[in-house]
Amino acid sequence: MKLSQFNLIEKRREFLEKTLKIKLSQIKKAHIEDEKNICGENLIGETTLPLGVAGPVKVKTFKSKIKKYYIPLSTTEGALIASVNRGCKAINQSGAVTFYIQEIGVTRGPVYETKNLRKGFWFINWLKQNEKEIKAAAEKTSSHLQYLRFEAKVIGFYTFVRFYFKTGEAMGMNMATFATESINQFIKQKTGINCLALSGNFCLDKKPGWLNFLSGRGISLWAEVVIKKEVIEEILKTTAEKIYEVWLAKNMIGSTLSGSLGFNAHFTNIVAAFFAATGQDLAHVVEGSLGVTATKILTGGNLYFSIYLPALMLGMVGGGTKLAVKKEAISLTGAKNKEELAKILGAAVLAGELSLLASLAQGSLANAHQKLGRK
Amino acid sequence: MKLSQFNLIEKRREFLEKTLKIKLSQIKKAHIEDEKNICGENLIGETTLPLGVAGPVKVKTFKSKIKKYYIPLSTTEGALIASVNRGCKAINQSGAVTFYIQEIGVTRGPVYETKNLRKGFWFINWLKQNEKEIKAAAEKTSSHLQYLRFEAKVIGFYTFVRFYFKTGEAMGMNMATFATESINQFIKQKTGINCLALSGNFCLDKKPGWLNFLSGRGISLWAEVVIKKEVIEEILKTTAEKIYEVWLAKNMIGSTLSGSLGFNAHFTNIVAAFFAATGQDLAHVVEGSLGVTATKILTGGNLYFSIYLPALMLGMVGGGTKLAVKKEAISLTGAKNKEELAKILGAAVLAGELSLLASLAQGSLANAHQKLGRK
Amino acid sequence: MKLSQFNLIEKRREFLEKTLKIKLSQIKKAHIEDEKNICGENLIGETTLPLGVAGPVKVKTFKSKIKKYYIPLSTTEGALIASVNRGCKAINQSGAVTFYIQEIGVTRGPVYETKNLRKGFWFINWLKQNEKEIKAAAEKTSSHLQYLRFEAKVIGFYTFVRFYFKTGEAMGMNMATFATESINQFIKQKTGINCLALSGNFCLDKKPGWLNFLSGRGISLWAEVVIKKEVIEEILKTTAEKIYEVWLAKNMIGSTLSGSLGFNAHFTNIVAAFFAATGQDLAHVVEGSLGVTATKILTGGNLYFSIYLPALMLGMVGGGTKLAVKKEAISLTGAKNKEELAKILGAAVLAGELSLLASLAQGSLANAHQKLGRK
Amino acid sequence: MKLSQFNLIEKRREFLEKTLKIKLSQIKKAHIEDEKNICGENLIGETTLPLGVAGPVKVKTFKSKIKKYYIPLSTTEGALIASVNRGCKAINQSGAVTFYIQEIGVTRGPVYETKNLRKGFWFINWLKQNEKEIKAAAEKTSSHLQYLRFEAKVIGFYTFVRFYFKTGEAMGMNMATFATESINQFIKQKTGINCLALSGNFCLDKKPGWLNFLSGRGISLWAEVVIKKEVIEEILKTTAEKIYEVWLAKNMIGSTLSGSLGFNAHFTNIVAAFFAATGQDLAHVVEGSLGVTATKILTGGNLYFSIYLPALMLGMVGGGTKLAVKKEAISLTGAKNKEELAKILGAAVLAGELSLLASLAQGSLANAHQKLGRK
Repeated sequence: MKLSQFNLIEKRREFLEKTLKIKLSQIKKAHIEDEKNICGENLIGETTLPLGVAGPVKVKTFKSKIKKYYIPLSTTEGALIASVNRGCKAINQSGAVTFYIQEIGVTRGPVYETKNLRKGFWFINWLKQNEKEIKAAAEKTSSHLQYLRFEAKVIGFYTFVRFYFKTGEAMGMNMATFATESINQFIKQKTGINCLALSGNFCLDKKPGWLNFLSGRGISLWAEVVIKKEVIEEILKTTAEKIYEVWLAKNMIGSTLSGSLGFNAHFTNIVAAFFAATGQDLAHVVEGSLGVTATKILTGGNLYFSIYLPALMLGMVGGGTKLAVKKEAISLTGAKNKEELAKILGAAVLAGELSLLASLAQGSLANAHQKLGRK
Repeated sequence: MKLSQFNLIEKRREFLEKTLKIKLSQIKKAHIEDEKNICGENLIGETTLPLGVAGPVKVKTFKSKIKKYYIPLSTTEGALIASVNRGCKAINQSGAVTFYIQEIGVTRGPVYETKNLRKGFWFINWLKQNEKEIKAAAEKTSSHLQYLRFEAKVIGFYTFVRFYFKTGEAMGMNMATFATESINQFIKQKTGINCLALSGNFCLDKKPGWLNFLSGRGISLWAEVVIKKEVIEEILKTTAEKIYEVWLAKNMIGSTLSGSLGFNAHFTNIVAAFFAATGQDLAHVVEGSLGVTATKILTGGNLYFSIYLPALMLGMVGGGTKLAVKKEAISLTGAKNKEELAKILGAAVLAGELSLLASLAQGSLANAHQKLGRK
Repeated sequence: MKLSQFNLIEKRREFLEKTLKIKLSQIKKAHIEDEKNICGENLIGETTLPLGVAGPVKVKTFKSKIKKYYIPLSTTEGALIASVNRGCKAINQSGAVTFYIQEIGVTRGPVYETKNLRKGFWFINWLKQNEKEIKAAAEKTSSHLQYLRFEAKVIGFYTFVRFYFKTGEAMGMNMATFATESINQFIKQKTGINCLALSGNFCLDKKPGWLNFLSGRGISLWAEVVIKKEVIEEILKTTAEKIYEVWLAKNMIGSTLSGSLGFNAHFTNIVAAFFAATGQDLAHVVEGSLGVTATKILTGGNLYFSIYLPALMLGMVGGGTKLAVKKEAISLTGAKNKEELAKILGAAVLAGELSLLASLAQGSLANAHQKLGRK
Repeated sequence: MKLSQFNLIEKRREFLEKTLKIKLSQIKKAHIEDEKNICGENLIGETTLPLGVAGPVKVKTFKSKIKKYYIPLSTTEGALIASVNRGCKAINQSGAVTFYIQEIGVTRGPVYETKNLRKGFWFINWLKQNEKEIKAAAEKTSSHLQYLRFEAKVIGFYTFVRFYFKTGEAMGMNMATFATESINQFIKQKTGINCLALSGNFCLDKKPGWLNFLSGRGISLWAEVVIKKEVIEEILKTTAEKIYEVWLAKNMIGSTLSGSLGFNAHFTNIVAAFFAATGQDLAHVVEGSLGVTATKILTGGNLYFSIYLPALMLGMVGGGTKLAVKKEAISLTGAKNKEELAKILGAAVLAGELSLLASLAQGSLANAHQKLGRK
């Protein structure tokens, strides 16, 4: 018998234990009560990650009231949660984080065989003139999906189209896929034009690239805070000048020298830990690694500190967020919707970024990892 | 009392449940017997992810013998494990995967204040002339660490140096950090030159960038297989020509149009699922998203299929691999060392890449996600 | 006396001849009758470049009639003009070049000190609501300038805005600068917001970058042709298959491996030679180096061949085109306007690209340079 | 009769005048005495560009002596020469430019059909073991050429190799091509491996790309100067703080937002003007657009100002430098060799960069172009 012929988690696991002569006692069926409710095939149990909490962190709401959030983070990198926590403290004692959010929309970017320039440009024009029907074809696939717009590019034989969708509280990649499939059927029926591939990498899904950096994807988020001089000294054990120096040399010039698309110190760390905790697609960590930290020394030795993340792909429902353990982590944040969840991640990224730059400025990074990372 | 004042996982969790009026019954202290053994601070329990298995997949060993491996994958994306599994089947019925591996080494890229060009170039020259002592300073920090070489770049006021280390069976980022800290002390003592930041983003750690694409980081891996015509038809339900067409339009031209550093269909998906299963640092998914798939139609309708991943950051020991549940997943692969583990991941990436391109070629992607992703 | 104190070309030249004890007989005042009519300061004469002609090349006009154009090219690279000429022959015997053109507009991208996110996003909103007045402020600076639109991006302390303008028959960079200066005065007066730099590199003028590749700049141009099998054999001395193979390996995979923004064989060569001949700004060769060549083997052994140049910056009037010698070169093309001039350049690029790929496929490149380049 | 059938410049020109009913009196055969001595085919005469001079600029030589150089610049952009000249003044009154130069070598990057990984890696190993013979094969093509080293990358079916050569006082692209052709014959003869294309874009010749940015090409050049506070005020009419602010916002953050490979204000302008004046290949302006400007405010209000140009492709002999008019421009610089010529260009770039950033800081850019650019 083969692994793929078993229908039950337990049988598969036992088969592997027997075949490979190993014990899989940790990978046991714990939370997975009903295999059919879980996305994922050939399951043999589950894996785990330590879950910690940073914060609370103070955030300014729309009407400039201040709200506090706890931040769930799953990681095995020692010092990371402690570092975000320290950043939260520095924020809280200085004020609160301010946000701007733009929902760019989830994108799917199919490629069509248009075979020459005339047909390609004709097709783009046809898309414009039939956008109402395209919208209808997309939106009939889900009551939660909203068609936003498209961008298109002809290259020789091919036309690449990037469709943008709002997907309610879901991250929405699957919804965007089904909507695009429906659009493609409409296109095929009306024009005879064939979709060569439902994703032509013009999405640009789970790959690092400039299109997502420049145009955004999912949610674009900006956050800022002014850290007070005395807070920098007392909590971060350094000065605004030193943090600024490290930021300039590392995030700006060092990133330039590395051909980087991340002009930041470690956005990825916090995005990955938050995604793991709250049930996001871990492959979207790639989009979350893009972005820029920008700082400025203000008069009086205070530090203006801001971050920009152009492409956060996350959701409150669907995918991994359906797991009970992820639901709990989301409930722990108190977020009511996707936008609020993005903000909490944003506050965490800002806190973590500030704390690491301060730690580098102080020269304590190796020390912290020595203490917290080496068990 | 504040969250950070609790010393025990249980107390913290109870504090949050009380404060936030929520239940955290899933995030319970299950496998975390002893907090001190886990990297991660402010722990309140653990989170979980479904764990499945793909394969076995056939791999050619050094002496062209064939070995079979199971592939543990943790994901909540429906269809992903099934897709890798289908790819494995296509590989197995066609032959086996061939590999080439280069251990580039883990990098740490500090930035030094050299203040002018003369000092900067003098410093690089000094590094060359004192490389034996630098090696010694690095290697005294760990018996598992081996200093390899450095690259350096002067930019105005600063000198950026990229140190390369072999780190035994560990992924080794922390080891590289401690080694670099020791090098810096030696440098400071001998030259008076100050390290402005232990990481100057010349590493380039957890950020997408061309330096890692062009120079590699951690392990660079190549894999290839020839898929037989009849296997493409029977298992992948398409033809070599169609897979090739989708590859060219999507991975090559579509990636070009998106300013992408990933000239592949979805390396990231498989890297993220394998990293989650085997206890790797999830933020290193970014480096794992880099790379190129290259195919060619051979005479007789067979398909040459190859992948290149320049920067895999993984390990067998240390970090998340210390968790018992991750150890089990690694034992399930049967890998004896880091290189073998990388190969198994490589085989999974190749299988998943082949299967997705075939699915796009066949036009069944949306269908598969409809069936497997929507529960 | 110093060089800068002389008011006449001749005196300056004589001063240098005397001071440096050299002869500048070639750099004599030939076409420069009146210094005041020439842009450029501290003139001592003129320099020259050999001027050749390729073509004529057949081009399809709007109503699918065919028109023929000669192509003036100034270069000192042996074999280049001959190569473009050979490409023209192959085109002419196969059919004619088809074009698509989009006037993206000239861009100027100032950076404003908005000091925090709220002000930055307020500013962008203000720009939207006052776009009519901004348009008026821009357009009052020249009757030939048309304000098109703007894009904006907030990063921490700064707001970057990219203004797009149509500039009639001029390349228009200066016109765009004056228009932006006028917009800035309007902004300052109405909002008090200070423009930190009239160009904040968000233009992105004369630098290679993804923003121009993805969004275009100046004129975006597509061109295509189907080259017949027998023409490939007789004129290009190779086959469609071999050209395709070289294109795939070099333009696609080789460019990928080099982190290139030019997925082409040598667009730059032809752009530079045409710009030198027709009086364009030679620094805009950078934008002209961007772009993609895409080919496909058609049934019957014919070759589909297409190019895409996203960012051509050229003009019919103003700047270097005012020189009589450049006017003659433009008259030689027969172009009546900027768009037609761009098409002729496009035909030349296509011809040159085809010929070089064919030459590489045939293995005759070194030979051709040996014969034509080594005098 | 057709254009290509004429053997003489005059006849061709007359043919075009008659055919197109135009006058080509400016494009007359002036300096072109003997067509056979000029690279370039189908010549009909010559084109011209105004030639001006900036400087002299003070430069520190090896033994810290100071030397003065005049800088020939050919451009039709008003204000450019004046701007470089102003920068020279600011340099001269502050001190002198210091340089570092690395001759990286000219590269040619062919692609070979190795057909699978084993053959590809075998080939790279073979290249290493036969490097002495490869060197000999290259160097027998020219007594001025020196083989330096190679880099190689396998991607699936292909192996890309980047050969580096020193080419004496020539820019050397043709020499590198002939040397590579000779290497290829040796490879073919010894291994049977076929070179698919003599240039596989791994060169990376005349295309913007990260490989040249990170590894350099031709000559890599660094230059720096400290500008005194009073000089900034008197000559540049601004302050160190303001120049720094513009540099940070424009060259660093603005370039980041544009996905730029040029982290500078306008290197390209000066490179293009110097190349046109001294007979360099104008398509190599692309490589010259790469690079970074880095500044720092020093105590006392002085400004540290530095540039880094990773890939200057220029020469003293061969190509366009053979034209008498270019020889004169080179003689005007006083450069004795390629390295010295590169330094003079470097000083010009530094001067032009400083002056433009100062002009932007002062807010006088539009004004200067209004005055000098609008004739």
